[in-house]
Amino acid sequence: MISIYVHQSGDTKCADTIDPAWLNPKSGVTLWVDLAAPTPEEGRVLTDVFHFHPLAVEDALTEIHHPKIETYDGYLYLILHGIDFREEEHWFATRDVDFFLGPNYLVTVHDGDSRSIAAVKSVCDKHDRILGEGPAGLMHRIVDSMVDNYRPEIESLEKHMNELEDEAILGRKSDLVRDILALKRDLASLRRVLIPQRDAVGRLARREFAAISDELTYRFRDVYDHLVRLSDEATLLQDRVTGILEAHLSTISNRLNMVMKVLTVMSTIFLPLTVLTGMWGMNVPLPAFPGGEAMQFWWVAGCMAAITAIMLGFFRRNGWL
Amino acid sequence: MISIYVHQSGDTKCADTIDPAWLNPKSGVTLWVDLAAPTPEEGRVLTDVFHFHPLAVEDALTEIHHPKIETYDGYLYLILHGIDFREEEHWFATRDVDFFLGPNYLVTVHDGDSRSIAAVKSVCDKHDRILGEGPAGLMHRIVDSMVDNYRPEIESLEKHMNELEDEAILGRKSDLVRDILALKRDLASLRRVLIPQRDAVGRLARREFAAISDELTYRFRDVYDHLVRLSDEATLLQDRVTGILEAHLSTISNRLNMVMKVLTVMSTIFLPLTVLTGMWGMNVPLPAFPGGEAMQFWWVAGCMAAITAIMLGFFRRNGWL
Amino acid sequence: MISIYVHQSGDTKCADTIDPAWLNPKSGVTLWVDLAAPTPEEGRVLTDVFHFHPLAVEDALTEIHHPKIETYDGYLYLILHGIDFREEEHWFATRDVDFFLGPNYLVTVHDGDSRSIAAVKSVCDKHDRILGEGPAGLMHRIVDSMVDNYRPEIESLEKHMNELEDEAILGRKSDLVRDILALKRDLASLRRVLIPQRDAVGRLARREFAAISDELTYRFRDVYDHLVRLSDEATLLQDRVTGILEAHLSTISNRLNMVMKVLTVMSTIFLPLTVLTGMWGMNVPLPAFPGGEAMQFWWVAGCMAAITAIMLGFFRRNGWL
Amino acid sequence: MISIYVHQSGDTKCADTIDPAWLNPKSGVTLWVDLAAPTPEEGRVLTDVFHFHPLAVEDALTEIHHPKIETYDGYLYLILHGIDFREEEHWFATRDVDFFLGPNYLVTVHDGDSRSIAAVKSVCDKHDRILGEGPAGLMHRIVDSMVDNYRPEIESLEKHMNELEDEAILGRKSDLVRDILALKRDLASLRRVLIPQRDAVGRLARREFAAISDELTYRFRDVYDHLVRLSDEATLLQDRVTGILEAHLSTISNRLNMVMKVLTVMSTIFLPLTVLTGMWGMNVPLPAFPGGEAMQFWWVAGCMAAITAIMLGFFRRNGWL
Amino acid sequence: MISIYVHQSGDTKCADTIDPAWLNPKSGVTLWVDLAAPTPEEGRVLTDVFHFHPLAVEDALTEIHHPKIETYDGYLYLILHGIDFREEEHWFATRDVDFFLGPNYLVTVHDGDSRSIAAVKSVCDKHDRILGEGPAGLMHRIVDSMVDNYRPEIESLEKHMNELEDEAILGRKSDLVRDILALKRDLASLRRVLIPQRDAVGRLARREFAAISDELTYRFRDVYDHLVRLSDEATLLQDRVTGILEAHLSTISNRLNMVMKVLTVMSTIFLPLTVLTGMWGMNVPLPAFPGGEAMQFWWVAGCMAAITAIMLGFFRRNGWL
Repeated sequence: MISIYVHQSGDTKCADTIDPAWLNPKSGVTLWVDLAAPTPEEGRVLTDVFHFHPLAVEDALTEIHHPKIETYDGYLYLILHGIDFREEEHWFATRDVDFFLGPNYLVTVHDGDSRSIAAVKSVCDKHDRILGEGPAGLMHRIVDSMVDNYRPEIESLEKHMNELEDEAILGRKSDLVRDILALKRDLASLRRVLIPQRDAVGRLARREFAAISDELTYRFRDVYDHLVRLSDEATLLQDRVTGILEAHLSTISNRLNMVMKVLTVMSTIFLPLTVLTGMWGMNVPLPAFPGGEAMQFWWVAGCMAAITAIMLGFFRRNGWL
Repeated sequence: MISIYVHQSGDTKCADTIDPAWLNPKSGVTLWVDLAAPTPEEGRVLTDVFHFHPLAVEDALTEIHHPKIETYDGYLYLILHGIDFREEEHWFATRDVDFFLGPNYLVTVHDGDSRSIAAVKSVCDKHDRILGEGPAGLMHRIVDSMVDNYRPEIESLEKHMNELEDEAILGRKSDLVRDILALKRDLASLRRVLIPQRDAVGRLARREFAAISDELTYRFRDVYDHLVRLSDEATLLQDRVTGILEAHLSTISNRLNMVMKVLTVMSTIFLPLTVLTGMWGMNVPLPAFPGGEAMQFWWVAGCMAAITAIMLGFFRRNGWL
Repeated sequence: MISIYVHQSGDTKCADTIDPAWLNPKSGVTLWVDLAAPTPEEGRVLTDVFHFHPLAVEDALTEIHHPKIETYDGYLYLILHGIDFREEEHWFATRDVDFFLGPNYLVTVHDGDSRSIAAVKSVCDKHDRILGEGPAGLMHRIVDSMVDNYRPEIESLEKHMNELEDEAILGRKSDLVRDILALKRDLASLRRVLIPQRDAVGRLARREFAAISDELTYRFRDVYDHLVRLSDEATLLQDRVTGILEAHLSTISNRLNMVMKVLTVMSTIFLPLTVLTGMWGMNVPLPAFPGGEAMQFWWVAGCMAAITAIMLGFFRRNGWL
Repeated sequence: MISIYVHQSGDTKCADTIDPAWLNPKSGVTLWVDLAAPTPEEGRVLTDVFHFHPLAVEDALTEIHHPKIETYDGYLYLILHGIDFREEEHWFATRDVDFFLGPNYLVTVHDGDSRSIAAVKSVCDKHDRILGEGPAGLMHRIVDSMVDNYRPEIESLEKHMNELEDEAILGRKSDLVRDILALKRDLASLRRVLIPQRDAVGRLARREFAAISDELTYRFRDVYDHLVRLSDEATLLQDRVTGILEAHLSTISNRLNMVMKVLTVMSTIFLPLTVLTGMWGMNVPLPAFPGGEAMQFWWVAGCMAAITAIMLGFFRRNGWL
Repeated sequence: MISIYVHQSGDTKCADTIDPAWLNPKSGVTLWVDLAAPTPEEGRVLTDVFHFHPLAVEDALTEIHHPKIETYDGYLYLILHGIDFREEEHWFATRDVDFFLGPNYLVTVHDGDSRSIAAVKSVCDKHDRILGEGPAGLMHRIVDSMVDNYRPEIESLEKHMNELEDEAILGRKSDLVRDILALKRDLASLRRVLIPQRDAVGRLARREFAAISDELTYRFRDVYDHLVRLSDEATLLQDRVTGILEAHLSTISNRLNMVMKVLTVMSTIFLPLTVLTGMWGMNVPLPAFPGGEAMQFWWVAGCMAAITAIMLGFFRRNGWL
């Protein structure tokens, strides 16, 4: 679907087709063309009307690319990623949005599902002045909104990590490793998107491009700061996952220790008792005990109690019980 | 709460409102405005009187930001963090203080709880000459005091780490991993604040900004040195935490070894004895022993003693006892 | 085998020998010479006709080299690697292709087995215009095709890794470590080829060489992007292998825990029972039980059942069963 | 204690007070002032006579600082560290020496315990020409001697590490982890001193400062080389400590394996024998054996021997014995 | 031993002493002086005839240094390392060769055992033209030969590593850790030599020094490529050692699992049987079995067989057998 916003003389209206005269920077027109999941015919607008470079158009229309920023003659080409975390599945997707930023136009291409662009559109519908800020200002609005959407997703991941950490220390789930590996992989993917995104926005914030005015530089610096913090947090989370795996291994070892202590305590007490009962069971005349045959049982029971008490005392002194 | 210090002709007094004429660098006035936990009305001073950039004002008034330094037209904007370690909970918070440094004024914004600013204020109340050093000198005083406050907190962390290390080697606490993970997380957060803080102050110390005189450069170099050492120490502590976790795992393994040795020694001694008593308990005529039936028991007891002695000897030779 | 393509006045034909006049940039000729597994005589063309530097010729003809790009007087020398993954053996080979790029000629040298060159040749046979794009355009076509061939191989590796990960978590194969180490080694080799390859193509994309026109710079930037993504993915896969090894170790530990629990449960239940039967087997008059001799067996059986029940209850409460 | 060496017209003498005229570079005087553990009064010389910057003086007189080099107007300020390893305690201290290097004077400040300065002083007492080399030459002599003192200390650490490595492989000491952690911490501290020291001397060797002549640059390059090697060795040792910890864990696991093998062999042999004796001990008529009651014992003994032999054979085949 | 080669007017001869006139670049002479394990008198040639800097001479004559390259007035000073791997001991030594490269002379200093220099000498003895390539060309020949000698040594190391890897997976040698640690140490030392060597040769290949002509730059670039590959391989081998250690630990754990399974299977089968025989051994009238006393044994044996079968079934279902 293609949406065309034209801003002229302080007034914003929607159009159905693009008048090539609008592309003239001197026309006084600000143009925003949004291609949401464009059909091949709609996509042809990029080459036929705007004459963008075929490779950039191919990137925009087909493949998923890493965030990057590239300069072409007369326009910037920028790929950024929005995020979509499905909390119930502990899984997130990144969706790329492509920007072509010309002197008086902005073209955005995405697969039809961008919350940020929808939000900016609904503002444009209401306020004429938004497009009046020029195409770079419009792009900043969209990028800012996309980056803001990362925050709740990162917090979701963090909450999930807290749960995993608790599980790792309690040691109840034996297949925790599968979850930890999945989370590790997710965080690696997240950083792989965030870091080039941060660097691309950083270039917008460093006055590298003439299309970005001083005022917009300050604004992109703000977005850049957000991205720096997000990628710092992703790095911290990644370090924590390693810690969780170690905690998991240490918990397993601790539990093994406990199991082995129970086994050792039981064996140490009952093996001698078995020998004791075995001795009185021998078909061999034993030496006489004081107190005669009637007391014999009590002597045996006494021996057993003594052995048990000695063993328990030994274990308690060693802190095993 | 808003506090206004005005220094003019060698004299410092408090004022209730800001006279816009003071902001003229040629007015001969040095101005310090401190906003402690400002209400929205008080915060409006930043935009209405000083005309700071809206994004900087937003950063200062609302969100917690990473330490950074930014230049705007006519003023520097700096975010630094003070530290607040709660020893009994082994947990620390960082509190950001925002500085706007103009040619003849300093504006500080914080959430009302800064020990360093309180200390500098109390000095200002007593000595007129403090503000006479100019706004950058005043800022150095506050920053220096903030950085000095890190030292005891780092030492607290180190003491806590020594305790954890001892616990890890003794191996008495089985949930030590939880403490270690928490400490690791704390240190990661600490470095995450200290390193950008160090870099921001480093820029002040490198004559990058005209507002910082040569003499102040030397002073900020001193603060920078402190921050270098602090972040070095945080890195060393982080390395040590890894070592503690490894020590913990090694201690668990050692204890398991000890438990298993006890089990093995007991089983190795008592299992043969059980077989021995079992043999004499069989309903089978055994070969005759020398010495007749009366000596039979002593033969059996002798066998048992011999087996036990042999086993103990074997274990002693292998260093298990 | 040597193949010679000559493009002149919009027409491409194959030739058997090289006319030295063609090498004159002003001749209006575009020349592509492909040496597939050249015999020593065919190789002599490089020195005798093109007068390439002896060291570059030696590199091209004999040894396997790392990807690199080098400038010589009047021509570029480039080594890139194609990939050949044998899925059934989980093993891959890289095959180097050498390019000499002059003002109006391209010379490619390979060991005779390059899918990419074969593909480009078959296009040249059909379309005259391909060589009309000039030697650098031709080189881009070959390089692009080589890099495209990496994608399915990386996906193959990823599929194999998924299998290994499942195996590691299930823990059925005890010699999984051998597979993991082999995969780790493969990925290290892959990165060792991909990263210098990425850097070499990156230099082509950065307008460093006059032979690369602006338009070709855009195209090589596209190839460069592919290589960036491929090496990112190789890094991610390498990180995952480490995770798989950790999962494997954790699974082994988990299984040991389970084995030990079984042993401990069995011992803890049956050792006391053995002592019990041993007691009634002693040749010692036991205290009388209520119910007379006929009930004695049921008393014993009751004791045994009680002990077993208590033990099972204890284990269930501790979550061992 | 303050020592003052004055070199004038080829003659070196000790002085009790500093004549301010000497500080004039044109006076033809070379001056060395050494402050060993200066009292506050002696320390006042730095500010009152030499007019050094208060922050540098504070650094010199009070706190322990990281190695660094700083330029001030007219002089360099350098902090380096000597080393003092206490072999019997496996612990080392670093002691900082502060240098102020002016056009014709050198001021050194230390806590009174520097072997290097003592050595250079004793040479100065004997040879007039030492101070004739100028203050930078003198500083080189002291720094060279300080760096030379590191070598035996590093070798001591290495010897200690060799012992730890042997212990780790033998696995006799169960509290080895404590020693390993301590060594790790020591090496981290050592590198923390060596690396900034190397960088500070590297700046002296790179002709960055006018006070260092070409000839002295060669000499400081030599010292720099030493420091490069020392910090390389410290890094190698740190890597080795990690290896030692891993060896320790592997040795613990190996010993556990051995303990468990003994337990398993014993149990596997004696548990069946117990059942065997139990069977003949049952109050149940057993099937008749060939050879009558007299042979019964030998049948039982034969069964036992057979079981034992089979088990031993099984273990030998599996390489457990 | 000192060898002197003089090349003049297309003719190379050996000389016994050095004519100082030869050192004049305009003399038309090319001079190669090789000092093999020089005596102190022979070493004096470096200072007395060539007037090299005393620190460089000291480095050349005495200590073992890291590879480096240094410029002095009128000559380059270069330290490189040859390698000598003793396969039977799995141990290698590096031997440093020092080069002084002047406008028309080359001086090499080594401890008398350099294969590369011996090889170049024997070529010089036969062919006059070698020295005609000038001193830098001669140096390239020696350096190239030295770097070529690394290849078989690295392959030796790799073969040894393959053996260790197999051992680690088979897990037969319990003191494998000692070998792994030694190999790790060797590789660290190797990289410590290779990396500065690579960087020193890289500087020769980057036209940094006027003494290196364009043609020689190409040749040193070739040597540099070899060193890049060698250090890459050393890094890969180092990564593999880590993997081998992990494989070793995993194998130990696997074997422990196997040992414990045997123990658990045996105990789980024989402990219930012991209780069973104990029950019939009790001096207690058991409930009557169908079939009378004669069948009683077969009932017991049946019970035992049933228990054994159930247990074996349980273990087989869990994949323990």
